Amino acid sequence: MQNFLYYTPTKVHFGKDTHLQVGEIIKSYGYDTIMLQYGKNSIKKSGLYDTVMDSLTKNGIKVVEMGGVEPNPKLSFVREAVKVARENNVQMILAVGGGSVIDSSKYTALGAVNDCDVWDFPTGKATPEKCLPVACILTIAAAGSEMSNSAVVTNMELNMKRGYGNDMMRCLFSICNPELTYTLSKYQTACGIVDIMAHTMERYFTLFEPTDLTDRVAESILKAVKDAGKVLMENPQDYEARATVMWGSSISHNGLTGCGRENSLAVHQIEHALSGEYDEIAHGAGLAVLFPAWAKYVYKENISRFAQFARRVWDVVEDDDEKAALEGINRMSEYFAFIGMPTKLRDFNIDESAFDRLAELCTFGGKRKIKTYIELDEEKIKDILKICY
Amino acid sequence: MQNFLYYTPTKVHFGKDTHLQVGEIIKSYGYDTIMLQYGKNSIKKSGLYDTVMDSLTKNGIKVVEMGGVEPNPKLSFVREAVKVARENNVQMILAVGGGSVIDSSKYTALGAVNDCDVWDFPTGKATPEKCLPVACILTIAAAGSEMSNSAVVTNMELNMKRGYGNDMMRCLFSICNPELTYTLSKYQTACGIVDIMAHTMERYFTLFEPTDLTDRVAESILKAVKDAGKVLMENPQDYEARATVMWGSSISHNGLTGCGRENSLAVHQIEHALSGEYDEIAHGAGLAVLFPAWAKYVYKENISRFAQFARRVWDVVEDDDEKAALEGINRMSEYFAFIGMPTKLRDFNIDESAFDRLAELCTFGGKRKIKTYIELDEEKIKDILKICY
Repeated sequence: MQNFLYYTPTKVHFGKDTHLQVGEIIKSYGYDTIMLQYGKNSIKKSGLYDTVMDSLTKNGIKVVEMGGVEPNPKLSFVREAVKVARENNVQMILAVGGGSVIDSSKYTALGAVNDCDVWDFPTGKATPEKCLPVACILTIAAAGSEMSNSAVVTNMELNMKRGYGNDMMRCLFSICNPELTYTLSKYQTACGIVDIMAHTMERYFTLFEPTDLTDRVAESILKAVKDAGKVLMENPQDYEARATVMWGSSISHNGLTGCGRENSLAVHQIEHALSGEYDEIAHGAGLAVLFPAWAKYVYKENISRFAQFARRVWDVVEDDDEKAALEGINRMSEYFAFIGMPTKLRDFNIDESAFDRLAELCTFGGKRKIKTYIELDEEKIKDILKICY
Repeated sequence: MQNFLYYTPTKVHFGKDTHLQVGEIIKSYGYDTIMLQYGKNSIKKSGLYDTVMDSLTKNGIKVVEMGGVEPNPKLSFVREAVKVARENNVQMILAVGGGSVIDSSKYTALGAVNDCDVWDFPTGKATPEKCLPVACILTIAAAGSEMSNSAVVTNMELNMKRGYGNDMMRCLFSICNPELTYTLSKYQTACGIVDIMAHTMERYFTLFEPTDLTDRVAESILKAVKDAGKVLMENPQDYEARATVMWGSSISHNGLTGCGRENSLAVHQIEHALSGEYDEIAHGAGLAVLFPAWAKYVYKENISRFAQFARRVWDVVEDDDEKAALEGINRMSEYFAFIGMPTKLRDFNIDESAFDRLAELCTFGGKRKIKTYIELDEEKIKDILKICY
């Protein structure tokens, strides 16, 4: 077991009707001027916007609004939000939405109190000294941003999607009411499930010796979320399944599944290039295509690990490790297809001619290799893209 | 899934040599006057005391010492520590030891800044308004106090052991170096393993509908800790096994295994009466005797749950639920015996004549019943004691 630091200070208010407490909770921290970030119109259509505003107003909280966060949140929006946050001296940012809204809020919180451009953080040009508190009401279970220390942002001028993490970016509190996810489409739900499973699997396929306890915790999350996903394809309003996926989202990415091991989130790094370049691709859908391809490309480097994954997560009964490993990868693919995910890059209308550009983005123009069982340079990344073409 | 609040703000520094950073870590929080609590002489013999003092001194931290915390920590000691903490204006309490030292420190931290006697908190006469920060260097993996919100204390005048929990009592940080547990005896190690498993099982046998994800996480901890325990009986210096047990200690009792369900820590309540009355009984040893007896007494009320426990944790292969349930309970008993735990109350030289007094203590003199699958009044508690006599 590698040494590790475990720090998950976010207070999670989980369950039915918890969002009704938002004003009271914020007041308990002593804040009276906040920025509210949200996406397009869905929270207005669903009535959530009115409910939240009502709770905030009743508790005497002044709200500065920044609606319109887009999927794969944009740097330009964050820069504008930073300006508004500064002008209004907001004390915290409340994100009402999914990972994109929370990530946008996290970068806004950094930008509002540090004297540099927020793009300097994900590009390594600056390190933040402080951060405004961020909190959320979660409406999509997927990214795990409600408990994680990280966030992604897309620079449309450069077609670059970049991630950055720092413990000060962890949410002060997160309100997680599974009922708020009832109205998500099957496609959005499935994208979330893939993202949650990918967050767990990226750490499961650790670069170092595995640790039994963390392995088993990861397998628990994978099995429970997978089974809940099946239920949701039949009945999107199954509370227990929605709750399992939502709590799975938080604990897959808050640090728990990485305790005692190291990982590089390799497939995420390839996917960020993909959805950074093609804004219409949902992150979860990109992962569903890339993960099995990555697994097929690298499994021979650690057959016993892929065999354990197959047997414990996908119930493969097969004595031969290599056969078991391959069957596990197949079952993962089949599961993603079953919940309605694309299985090939061509499903996104991407042409092989794009592979050079994608490989270049993955490696920051050849400046880095992606660490995984095999170090991935541009050529090897193209090999993986070919597998799922 | 029941609504829940999840809050685990403790920063865990886990791994080899992490204790060497203690002075630096405390300094980073800005504290310069602390109280150091520890047990008898073991940390002096092992050299840990000198190492810790060296790190504290180097970082300019003034240390007020309170050595001599006893197992089943005593209220009288805490009252004295409160006096000393106030006289010296200590800013935080550092516990170097196991659950007893941490629990003693938690009560001292409450007592130092609230205007009442600390015994008022576990007896429900007062609610704390604040609490000094507490941190620890863990030397025994067992109680989970390094991440939990609770602590127990024993009032020797009344022969009463009582627990109390409040989120302000959670450690600010915990330093968990598995190597510091290498020198524990097999008996101490086994007591810890039982305590960790019991913390997990108490919540697993929830009063409400179970939740798949939390079930699976609990089963993961039980399997990993159980297997690590076997390794440690052969090789007490196996780092991986020590690390598994130590991390298992933290996550079994920090809230994770209770998410979405409710529980009453029923067996703990009976055991607190036992080791409160008989100070020489180690908490883990008491649990090892009581848990199988409790399970045999109540399993018929929820056969499918005990059958799942048997199949998933103890690898029982048996189609009939009741047979599986009973076989699971047997295997748990056999495992506790295998790691050297007592299996009967008579192993502690307790006579049946003590049962009236124990039942009285469990029910606070008949004033409460212990909630579990069957509500336990004095008569029923005596039935359980008879099973393990």
